[in-house]
Amino acid sequence: MLVVMRHDATDAHLRDVVQAIETLGYEARPIPGSLRTAVGIVGNDGRIDATRLSSLDGVREVIHITKPYRRVSREWRADDTVVALPGGLSIGGHDIPIIAGPCAVESEEQIHDVARLVRAAGGSILRGGAFKPRTSPYSFQGLGKDALRWLRHAADETGLLVITEVMDPESAELVEAHSDIIQIGARNMQNFSLLRRVGRLSRPILLKRGIAATITEWLLSAEYLMNEGNEQIVLCERGIRSFDQTTRNVLDLAAIPATRQLTHLPVIADPSHGTGDRDLVIPMARAAIAAGADGVMVEVHPHPDQALSDGAQSLYPKQLDQLMRDLEPMAAAVGRRIVTPAATLS
Amino acid sequence: MLVVMRHDATDAHLRDVVQAIETLGYEARPIPGSLRTAVGIVGNDGRIDATRLSSLDGVREVIHITKPYRRVSREWRADDTVVALPGGLSIGGHDIPIIAGPCAVESEEQIHDVARLVRAAGGSILRGGAFKPRTSPYSFQGLGKDALRWLRHAADETGLLVITEVMDPESAELVEAHSDIIQIGARNMQNFSLLRRVGRLSRPILLKRGIAATITEWLLSAEYLMNEGNEQIVLCERGIRSFDQTTRNVLDLAAIPATRQLTHLPVIADPSHGTGDRDLVIPMARAAIAAGADGVMVEVHPHPDQALSDGAQSLYPKQLDQLMRDLEPMAAAVGRRIVTPAATLS
Amino acid sequence: MLVVMRHDATDAHLRDVVQAIETLGYEARPIPGSLRTAVGIVGNDGRIDATRLSSLDGVREVIHITKPYRRVSREWRADDTVVALPGGLSIGGHDIPIIAGPCAVESEEQIHDVARLVRAAGGSILRGGAFKPRTSPYSFQGLGKDALRWLRHAADETGLLVITEVMDPESAELVEAHSDIIQIGARNMQNFSLLRRVGRLSRPILLKRGIAATITEWLLSAEYLMNEGNEQIVLCERGIRSFDQTTRNVLDLAAIPATRQLTHLPVIADPSHGTGDRDLVIPMARAAIAAGADGVMVEVHPHPDQALSDGAQSLYPKQLDQLMRDLEPMAAAVGRRIVTPAATLS
Amino acid sequence: MLVVMRHDATDAHLRDVVQAIETLGYEARPIPGSLRTAVGIVGNDGRIDATRLSSLDGVREVIHITKPYRRVSREWRADDTVVALPGGLSIGGHDIPIIAGPCAVESEEQIHDVARLVRAAGGSILRGGAFKPRTSPYSFQGLGKDALRWLRHAADETGLLVITEVMDPESAELVEAHSDIIQIGARNMQNFSLLRRVGRLSRPILLKRGIAATITEWLLSAEYLMNEGNEQIVLCERGIRSFDQTTRNVLDLAAIPATRQLTHLPVIADPSHGTGDRDLVIPMARAAIAAGADGVMVEVHPHPDQALSDGAQSLYPKQLDQLMRDLEPMAAAVGRRIVTPAATLS
Repeated sequence: MLVVMRHDATDAHLRDVVQAIETLGYEARPIPGSLRTAVGIVGNDGRIDATRLSSLDGVREVIHITKPYRRVSREWRADDTVVALPGGLSIGGHDIPIIAGPCAVESEEQIHDVARLVRAAGGSILRGGAFKPRTSPYSFQGLGKDALRWLRHAADETGLLVITEVMDPESAELVEAHSDIIQIGARNMQNFSLLRRVGRLSRPILLKRGIAATITEWLLSAEYLMNEGNEQIVLCERGIRSFDQTTRNVLDLAAIPATRQLTHLPVIADPSHGTGDRDLVIPMARAAIAAGADGVMVEVHPHPDQALSDGAQSLYPKQLDQLMRDLEPMAAAVGRRIVTPAATLS
Repeated sequence: MLVVMRHDATDAHLRDVVQAIETLGYEARPIPGSLRTAVGIVGNDGRIDATRLSSLDGVREVIHITKPYRRVSREWRADDTVVALPGGLSIGGHDIPIIAGPCAVESEEQIHDVARLVRAAGGSILRGGAFKPRTSPYSFQGLGKDALRWLRHAADETGLLVITEVMDPESAELVEAHSDIIQIGARNMQNFSLLRRVGRLSRPILLKRGIAATITEWLLSAEYLMNEGNEQIVLCERGIRSFDQTTRNVLDLAAIPATRQLTHLPVIADPSHGTGDRDLVIPMARAAIAAGADGVMVEVHPHPDQALSDGAQSLYPKQLDQLMRDLEPMAAAVGRRIVTPAATLS
Repeated sequence: MLVVMRHDATDAHLRDVVQAIETLGYEARPIPGSLRTAVGIVGNDGRIDATRLSSLDGVREVIHITKPYRRVSREWRADDTVVALPGGLSIGGHDIPIIAGPCAVESEEQIHDVARLVRAAGGSILRGGAFKPRTSPYSFQGLGKDALRWLRHAADETGLLVITEVMDPESAELVEAHSDIIQIGARNMQNFSLLRRVGRLSRPILLKRGIAATITEWLLSAEYLMNEGNEQIVLCERGIRSFDQTTRNVLDLAAIPATRQLTHLPVIADPSHGTGDRDLVIPMARAAIAAGADGVMVEVHPHPDQALSDGAQSLYPKQLDQLMRDLEPMAAAVGRRIVTPAATLS
Repeated sequence: MLVVMRHDATDAHLRDVVQAIETLGYEARPIPGSLRTAVGIVGNDGRIDATRLSSLDGVREVIHITKPYRRVSREWRADDTVVALPGGLSIGGHDIPIIAGPCAVESEEQIHDVARLVRAAGGSILRGGAFKPRTSPYSFQGLGKDALRWLRHAADETGLLVITEVMDPESAELVEAHSDIIQIGARNMQNFSLLRRVGRLSRPILLKRGIAATITEWLLSAEYLMNEGNEQIVLCERGIRSFDQTTRNVLDLAAIPATRQLTHLPVIADPSHGTGDRDLVIPMARAAIAAGADGVMVEVHPHPDQALSDGAQSLYPKQLDQLMRDLEPMAAAVGRRIVTPAATLS
């Protein structure tokens, strides 16, 4: 950490800063400049609260050198985390799984139809919302417990795993009981009560990046989960908000290799929410693999024009087939492989 | 709602769109253009889900004409909502209350000290966090139930009201029991489970704008609250995220008059979070009143350099006095008045 | 400047960095941390190019402590610059001038009409575009030289000063010959060829902030002007781009006091471009004065519904009168005064 | 175009709008809604100035249906534009050329060294700045005319083509005389005087997207060029500005397929400026090809640690070799080919 003094800071201000640092148990090392002085903090283990120092008189700003997260960082663990899933599947290793399914579970029939087409296309994990966070209270909010039950059943019948979103601490155990991976949505990335609750569950967690979250904030939210004891975390880039509304969001693919430099956790991409336009999903799924993504999650619906939510970004079944065909050579080109479930069913 | 067709849409595509609109129970009115055709929907009451239409073949985009919120809109209620508070105070009318207090309640002594200085300066409502949403799990997270009790006591003793934040449905009743206004923080603006729970409580609610929330999304979150039956809602602009980090956030003051055009709900400003810099709080509080804000909320601390959070944006006690002195002529210049508690105590 | 090493940087990497700093003629001061090491540069006068250091192996990032601009900074000149204008007017002192006029000069009659109504309302400076930067090649581009002549004549006849925009080096002298203040538009804030040319002219310059420019970049563009010898610079905040399109731009009023801390140059606000909506111009003009602006520039048109550009954000003549009435008590409340031209004409 | 009335608009307001539309020579078609009325404009050819209508009383907003650009649109020309270059090279067809070179030409020797290593790696086009737009007036600004001469000579000697940036109308002919493609930089995307001048030159033009430009604005700037007669335009996505500074910019790869839907012009990517970090250049170049880019432009330097600008994002020579090796299978996977110059030299 580096404390930068104002250009008009006095010697007394500087002494106060040095003393405050020493009170915290660290060594202060002043660096005089021609216009202003900075004070380096030696031995900082990343847990000093900048507030104490930034509010001292004569201080202009406090610059962080040490990253504020620890357990999620590459420094903490140099080797990639490979998140193990039931049935021998994993995320973060050589094999790349594809996650597909509807935005929301709409009926028992619909989710069984989707499960079969996901399985036939070669996907490994079935997504589907039971509890839906919707911007408007008048939009379809999901079918809750019934949806969870149907989703689990459809996946079991087709040999797929289940990922679904948890929206609040109350329903955490219910979601845990029906899923293989628990998703925390973009809007809840900084719902810290939820993070703490889910961090104590026994399932792997998919943590979506908030729509305006920096990579640092994203990793700090993962740190919340890990701090509660759950180390099986997958990060998911799903687009950030920008000034241009041509696409629904801006899929920040450079965040994938950039985040992989900083953390040992796997990172996947969601080009459906990342673009909001089904015609952009395939090229951006390809690009995600090319950029180093450890997985891809897409929305697909048997009849997108009848979907109760996100119809415009849902793939047609034949587009999911195309996606799978396109991703294979992409994965090969980066020395990896799209994993498909063992052909025991289909 | 207006459905815009692709330039290469066929007559069959157009017929499908017209039929889909009629199936939903509305009248379709095609508007042929030289390059493409649009279809207007006559009689739309604002509750059509665009998903159904935007996912049809041949459709380029769906443009919303009717706003998606209803109860919070000026169309629903032309007159300003004035949120009544205990002791004759209100927000949204002629009088402008000032809310002040520390970021977090740090001790019984601290919050009593702050309460006395807020009261002495002329503030009406005491703020103070008991449950703190913090980006890092290693930052101070608040003192919880004890803090709530001390906060209530300090306010009662000095004749102030209490506003404090609720972070999850579990603690909603506890927060309700100790506060006069319940705050929903920026990070939780789209925590819909929390919105639904708090919308069923009996206290007025302060709803902060999310860091990357559009005004439409903000109003839709207020619609969630109102839809549960709670109509005593105050909106709070507290800065949005931008590309420039010179200030912590960009305080979007034009959102105040712009939002007031769209809704009957009062809007206040939080220049402390809006700027992150105590030296900018006073000018921006003045500007907020000049722009039409119905209240101002600021952070103050007896010793900002010892604050456990947000020290850099906390006013010194004498700065709070200066703020109050500065705001009086501002309020007068816009034909309003800064309200101070009746001089029964202090 | 502070060079932060990667956590896996070797001693050899560190030695290379130290040596590179010393080769540049400065002293290197390593600050070992528990996770990584940083190297402070002592005696940096703000002109080291970070490129040399950031590209060395083992370096993670280079953090700037010294600001990269010099002449525009408060450190260079502690006292406020007051830009003197003909007729005793000035910008940056106690008096606050109002600049008003149409987006574009549309005819000789129109600009004379506007000049009279600006003068009658109490404005001091007439704005009007002769060369218009327009997003579309099919939009009205301005009437050029004729417009400049009419604008000058209209201002002279009514006792106003002239501000108008220069779009390229070729027309710089022509604009100089007809104006009292030369405006550089937001889109040209980083048109460095233009900055260098205009910096050699003898007129004061109004430098608008680019739509996505940081305050640092804005001040560096002012530094270009000052570096060519022209020190009569007025900065103009006119709104930045955000994710929300409810208003045309987000008027960043906190940038006014924040920039005034960093520079000795005056800063004015343009609430017309800052909001794009005439109904928001008056409240935001008030807020700008409350925040410390040294002037306000607004668009006004005798018949906004017939304007060839920016009609939606142009005030009606009676709204300009209202604006002037509203700003007087605002200025008084911050201890200043709205200046009006001496009553020799009108 | 659709004119949306305010909810409190009167019948007289509506009549005024209808009359204004008819005066402009179009047919007005009112669409009454339950809350407000909209008016469609039939037969709009895309050249109505919204200003006239949006400033009428009772109008809330004007919504564009027809895109404001024409010649650059897919509607104007359905087939892809393939920009032909000397020596049989082209951009926009099956073959994908790689553009590489230093940020700036620093010496005759340096640019010859780079040319040889670009050629050896398989690049086709040599980039190098002679006139550099730099944020600070104290940064290296390029060597001008000498640099142009050396660049041309180095390219001719190695069988490469030349691309270099033009910064102002004055030097347009000089740049034209020494280059095969003329680049317009991101900061000058809306320098309309420059666009008009360059649009009259005879060389193909590379138009970079501005750092905060929407896709619509980018295409309108291309329309400026095309409107002057130059139809040989290549668009270049080079990153947009966001709230997260982990990477220098956010490379908006979805803009590539999204823009290709809207225009017949080819689009390439610049992952060097798009990320600012050489370690991210290779994965993002791969991702760009996967997303459908028609070319890739990267910075390379024989000794990045001695570069006078952009050292941190310049590839080492061996990284350029790696890039070329990585892109070949990527191109194959999308059914295309990385083109390399015929082996007449090397």
